[in-house]
Amino acid sequence: MRLRKKPWAHEYMAKFPNVVSENPSANQGRWREYFQQEGPLHVEVGTGKGRFITEMARQHPDILFIGVEKYSSVLVTGVQRVEGNPPANLRLIEADVNDIEDLFTPREIDRLYINFTDPWPKKRHAKRRLTHGDFLQKYDRVLTDDGEIHFKTDNQGLFEYSLGSMSQHGLAFKNVSLDLHRSDVKHNVMTEYEEKFAGKGMRIYRLEAYRHTL
Amino acid sequence: MRLRKKPWAHEYMAKFPNVVSENPSANQGRWREYFQQEGPLHVEVGTGKGRFITEMARQHPDILFIGVEKYSSVLVTGVQRVEGNPPANLRLIEADVNDIEDLFTPREIDRLYINFTDPWPKKRHAKRRLTHGDFLQKYDRVLTDDGEIHFKTDNQGLFEYSLGSMSQHGLAFKNVSLDLHRSDVKHNVMTEYEEKFAGKGMRIYRLEAYRHTL
Ligand SMILES: C[S@@+](CC[C@H](N)C(=O)[O-])C[C@H]1O[C@@H](n2cnc3c(N)ncnc32)[C@H](O)[C@@H]1O
Ligand SMILES: C[S@@+](CC[C@H](N)C(=O)[O-])C[C@H]1O[C@@H](n2cnc3c(N)ncnc32)[C@H](O)[C@@H]1O
Repeated sequence: MRLRKKPWAHEYMAKFPNVVSENPSANQGRWREYFQQEGPLHVEVGTGKGRFITEMARQHPDILFIGVEKYSSVLVTGVQRVEGNPPANLRLIEADVNDIEDLFTPREIDRLYINFTDPWPKKRHAKRRLTHGDFLQKYDRVLTDDGEIHFKTDNQGLFEYSLGSMSQHGLAFKNVSLDLHRSDVKHNVMTEYEEKFAGKGMRIYRLEAYRHTL
Repeated sequence: MRLRKKPWAHEYMAKFPNVVSENPSANQGRWREYFQQEGPLHVEVGTGKGRFITEMARQHPDILFIGVEKYSSVLVTGVQRVEGNPPANLRLIEADVNDIEDLFTPREIDRLYINFTDPWPKKRHAKRRLTHGDFLQKYDRVLTDDGEIHFKTDNQGLFEYSLGSMSQHGLAFKNVSLDLHRSDVKHNVMTEYEEKFAGKGMRIYRLEAYRHTL
């Protein structure tokens, strides 16, 4: 993702505390209190400009949605999109997914979305992939026992890698699609990147992962 | 696979006991004795005309190879191919994979190959897929503790299904390829079906599965 520096982003986002959670680790373990709403909690990591998580929040008012994005310069676009009419069940967070355990307590999250995350194709960068074993271990702790990870990407190499790392981590798969836009999957909400790649006719890969019990 | 009936197939195959093991369940638990050779045992299920397993046997004289095929009318073609110069480390067996536990004792097999097995696309036929949970349970018993299943197919739906069933069965994946013939995999031995489909430019999917230990 190209980064145009936006020195004004922080100041701007601070004006919309009902969109951006300002001191998110203060809400660790009590996100439902903070939202003043019960219900499942779904978190997208590497949310980018937030198209997916915003649309999901609008379609599912009974679920709480949080998008985590590292770069304020990217996140601020998502804020600009919703600031006029923010869904009450949505918050965006500026944070590094490496610190996800500071944002959520064990078993606080019901579902995690990973969409079109940077593939980091070089082997020596594998640890940066959001589906690397080190990240899976952190997700494991913040997810409920029957929590799920829903993962989409256009990147063949990243999908191949993730099938390996996730299965080696004790996760089982369901609803695997190796060509999402030419399959009969319903209710797919597209992300920014997905629109771009699917529009070019590229394959989109998708899976749902959960802890398997034999 | 189209089946042209060949009433002469049985009689023909009986003439080549060094190619076709005639009463294979008699060798259960003592295949190495029967081969008069030590070494790992690799078995292909649904071997068809046996191109793959024969070529593998020629390339790896230190490994014992057995191909299992249900239809004599298909298997006999494999016999005709090798009868003049049969590799000592290869046998073909006419049997149904459902009965694999009559052919091998627990932990007798080091590696299982499943190549281009019939996809049975209709849901109500799922139990016939050689990657269905019922088959995986049988493989589980005849495979060594660090045994592997190597699976190739051109069929997207079957591969999607198998990623689910295998992972739900406690198997982890490595060396996943979603486009084998446009990847940098070395030493790939092609099967009959693979030549046909890859020749048409179709994608070939491949994975290696093993019991994961956390
Ligand atoms: C390729 S973009 C995809 C954005 C969006 N999910 C989509 O599908 O359109 C990946 C995003 O993940 C963010 N990201 C990558 N690593 C991250 C990390 N460790 N913590 C938080 N965000 C991260 C990047 O800044 C970028 O905005
Ligand atoms: C589509 S062909 C593929 C043959 C070969 N593996 C290849 O890749 O060219 C599948 C073969 O599996 C055999 N087969 C299917 N179910 C079987 C079973 N339960 N036991 C033994 N063979 C079976 C079929 O008879 C057929 O010859």
